[in-house]
Amino acid sequence: MKRIGFQFKVRADRLDEYKAHHKAVWPEMLAALRESGWHNYTLFMRPDGLIFGYFETEHSLQTAQAKMAATDVNTRWQNFMSGFIDADARPDETFVELEAYFHLD
Amino acid sequence: MKRIGFQFKVRADRLDEYKAHHKAVWPEMLAALRESGWHNYTLFMRPDGLIFGYFETEHSLQTAQAKMAATDVNTRWQNFMSGFIDADARPDETFVELEAYFHLD
Repeated sequence: MKRIGFQFKVRADRLDEYKAHHKAVWPEMLAALRESGWHNYTLFMRPDGLIFGYFETEHSLQTAQAKMAATDVNTRWQNFMSGFIDADARPDETFVELEAYFHLD
Repeated sequence: MKRIGFQFKVRADRLDEYKAHHKAVWPEMLAALRESGWHNYTLFMRPDGLIFGYFETEHSLQTAQAKMAATDVNTRWQNFMSGFIDADARPDETFVELEAYFHLD
């Protein structure tokens, strides 16, 4: 099982609304994440909109993302979330992987 | 068990050396972390020196940090690491907690 860390950026002026949507993520989206190997997945935010994601998976980030990208519900969710980021892109296209350099079980 | 995310900043010009020290953290420091309730603890870095930490604990970040702060080995480790950050402080005094807004088991 690998431990993956990544970051992306959400518009600071829409953070409250963005956060509210994440309290009610569609059950179909949660099921797709589980089936795509996203385990113990937590998203954290900084007040300026920097987001840090952590999850555990048997895959690489690239493979875990490709599995999600192949689902219809992810396309719908990412398009829905596109208005919350500055880039002209889907949020999941802006993920930047971070390097794990220390671990303690 | 709470999931804690925090960040701090390491000097970009000393990142390689900083990373090398984290491949050989003192066993006494690892034992102190375990005994202070730091579980499944991973540190991630961005190339500019932004560090993201994730761990799981029965405590708050404040309590988990206070338990470490009470150990001699943490004082020695943090003083050793002080040269790797820009602030005139110990690294553990610069941790900023992030808000968890989504979780999937």
